[in-house]
Amino acid sequence: MATTMRIDAATEVRTKAQAARRAARVLAQTPTAMKNQALRAVAEALSEQQDEILAANKEDLAAATAAGLPAYTQDRLLLNPARLEAIAADVRDVAALPDPVGEVIEMRTVESGIQVGRQRVPLGVIGVVYEARPNVTIDIASLAVKSGNAVVLRGGSDAIHSNLALARVLGRVMTEVGLPAGVVQLIETTDRQSVTALLRARGLIDVVIPRGGADLINFCVEHATVPVIETGAGVCHTYVDADADTEKARKVTFNAKVRRPSICNALDTLLIHEAIAPRLLPTLADELHGANVELRCDPGAAALLANRPHVKAASESDYGTEFLDYIMAVKLVPDFEAALDHIAHYGSGHSEAIITENYTTGQRFINEVDAAAVYLNASTQFTDGAQFGLGAEVGISTQKLHARGPMALGEMTTYKWIIYGNGHTRP
Amino acid sequence: MATTMRIDAATEVRTKAQAARRAARVLAQTPTAMKNQALRAVAEALSEQQDEILAANKEDLAAATAAGLPAYTQDRLLLNPARLEAIAADVRDVAALPDPVGEVIEMRTVESGIQVGRQRVPLGVIGVVYEARPNVTIDIASLAVKSGNAVVLRGGSDAIHSNLALARVLGRVMTEVGLPAGVVQLIETTDRQSVTALLRARGLIDVVIPRGGADLINFCVEHATVPVIETGAGVCHTYVDADADTEKARKVTFNAKVRRPSICNALDTLLIHEAIAPRLLPTLADELHGANVELRCDPGAAALLANRPHVKAASESDYGTEFLDYIMAVKLVPDFEAALDHIAHYGSGHSEAIITENYTTGQRFINEVDAAAVYLNASTQFTDGAQFGLGAEVGISTQKLHARGPMALGEMTTYKWIIYGNGHTRP
Repeated sequence: MATTMRIDAATEVRTKAQAARRAARVLAQTPTAMKNQALRAVAEALSEQQDEILAANKEDLAAATAAGLPAYTQDRLLLNPARLEAIAADVRDVAALPDPVGEVIEMRTVESGIQVGRQRVPLGVIGVVYEARPNVTIDIASLAVKSGNAVVLRGGSDAIHSNLALARVLGRVMTEVGLPAGVVQLIETTDRQSVTALLRARGLIDVVIPRGGADLINFCVEHATVPVIETGAGVCHTYVDADADTEKARKVTFNAKVRRPSICNALDTLLIHEAIAPRLLPTLADELHGANVELRCDPGAAALLANRPHVKAASESDYGTEFLDYIMAVKLVPDFEAALDHIAHYGSGHSEAIITENYTTGQRFINEVDAAAVYLNASTQFTDGAQFGLGAEVGISTQKLHARGPMALGEMTTYKWIIYGNGHTRP
Repeated sequence: MATTMRIDAATEVRTKAQAARRAARVLAQTPTAMKNQALRAVAEALSEQQDEILAANKEDLAAATAAGLPAYTQDRLLLNPARLEAIAADVRDVAALPDPVGEVIEMRTVESGIQVGRQRVPLGVIGVVYEARPNVTIDIASLAVKSGNAVVLRGGSDAIHSNLALARVLGRVMTEVGLPAGVVQLIETTDRQSVTALLRARGLIDVVIPRGGADLINFCVEHATVPVIETGAGVCHTYVDADADTEKARKVTFNAKVRRPSICNALDTLLIHEAIAPRLLPTLADELHGANVELRCDPGAAALLANRPHVKAASESDYGTEFLDYIMAVKLVPDFEAALDHIAHYGSGHSEAIITENYTTGQRFINEVDAAAVYLNASTQFTDGAQFGLGAEVGISTQKLHARGPMALGEMTTYKWIIYGNGHTRP
């Protein structure tokens, strides 16, 4: 196995970001057909070159076992032929998506006679910091290539051997199809210094997307001079209004919590109008108990759920917590305004839902709640690029600038103004 | 004149940002008609309450004189009835622009049956850091109110009395028309600490827009945890291709440099294909000399302009300089590729132009140059919100995230996803 001489993190990041920048200039002008050809070749290579990838993955797994990493971390690390085939299928899906680059968003002739429009172009070089899931390396690389961006990847140390093997495969494929190998750069230094170097490579890297927990995101925001797109944390509410259809409320709430409690769009706090709570909460609670959901209730809700073993008293800190688990906070509210206030105070601006049959209340909720995704009578678990009809995504942005919600191919582009004149001068 | 007890900058910023945040929640739901009414009332008040404003402005001017500030700074500080009337006219123009808030950008029914769309919403609270031009206080406030955003303004110390008076007028008008006075907040502490506090008010302020020189912008990027939109610096090129119409080249180049050399979209470096230079450069140089433009030439260009007093030798640092003055660098290039490389290396991603009659060369320039605005056969001086048909703007963004080029009303908004279901759950 070839090993690279260890160089310092800042030099490595700088050198690779410069190479990515040169490659990005080429990739930005690459026709869609050639980008798709590259992606299909990547999918092929994941199967044909699986021995090399799986051998490297075994090294990571052995190190993980030796280090006593928990079983779920080891599972996230694991690659096998079936998983590689699933990753390859995702790459083929990205190849099949429409290319956002080159779209002219608007074009008009203005008073002076010049024609002025905006055209979609790649961002340039995207830095991505992520943890120990080697599949992310391929996911991000394929979305980047499709959207015409070079990437500088800084994956977690636990997956370094797998990532190096995947990066070699990607590099070879790019060269084979005639794209610069530098389109996908993997940082080999996996300490915090390489993250910092990435965050401060202003002028070389156009945006950094951290994928990980709140600690990583805060670290990035604190140290970055390159713009950062924050993804992730979702403290999500569903408010069941006095005018809700209780059957819809029951179904949607159950789905929003139980379908996959571990993802960022899962329900965390259920708010129920006190007028409807007696008719809804006991049945819903029993159903949730059947799915092993622990309920952390305010006194009003608790009073309706006496003698149920899965019901506990909520503490103040339960509101505003992203549980990512079979736990849900429950609170009764006296009116719609109290629900809005609670969400404005405790929400993280991710996904918020109301269940109501009342037109005015529903529209007010849609208009007044400030979040990436606001739902009327549907489960917050829909917040996802594919579910919104955008295809794959690199994450869910919880900030307001540039992109909000799913960061799909379109959100990996910017625009430039293009102006056609005929010798026009400004008066 | 009332003075406020001096409190520390961080506390002042925090308190005012919180007030702005509360006001923003109200303003986001305010109907267009009421926002326009507020703006027209501001325009009225600037005239009716001009005694208070001009008295405060006199204090600033007296302090400026005492401090020996240069004449042009004093001129930028100066308010008088005519200037107030011009500012009021701009406010009325903003009132007449379409309201971007509430626009549903797209809406479709996806496979699962939910209806998914994006709706334009205000950013929330915008922080703006600017220097000693009191008119900016009203410009920004009016664009913010129209786009549904509260603002926290941190103007320069030289204009503090004028700004305080203008902020009082704005606050009274907002209250009169029934909007929260907190919509426009002026920071009274004018040291760097208040800028730092603004830049770190994460969770309270959604974006900071610095308006000023490179030093201010670098300071903001270095210290911010709130996202920053960089505006300003423009190192702009015009490339005259071998296939250019020399008459168009002459007219456009002259306009791009001379119309207003002091603005960011003014031409800095003229690149000329060596095949056309002998036919164009001597005439153009004479015309530019007539307008007192100094030319800093590479040896090839200098050889064509012998014995002209305004021609000097270019140093390496002239390329990549934003002159903001009657100075222009000139360089001959052997081919189109050399022009692209020069622009990629020295450009700041602001405004770049090509003059050519060749279709393929023109389209390649439009596609391959990476800048906020790319021109074919027109003057770079058109880069401006009003000239692009967007109305007034808060600045020209030279970064790629969120908005590129003019930051007009639309660019002061973000979007949220809105989802309509009927009890839909995710499979």
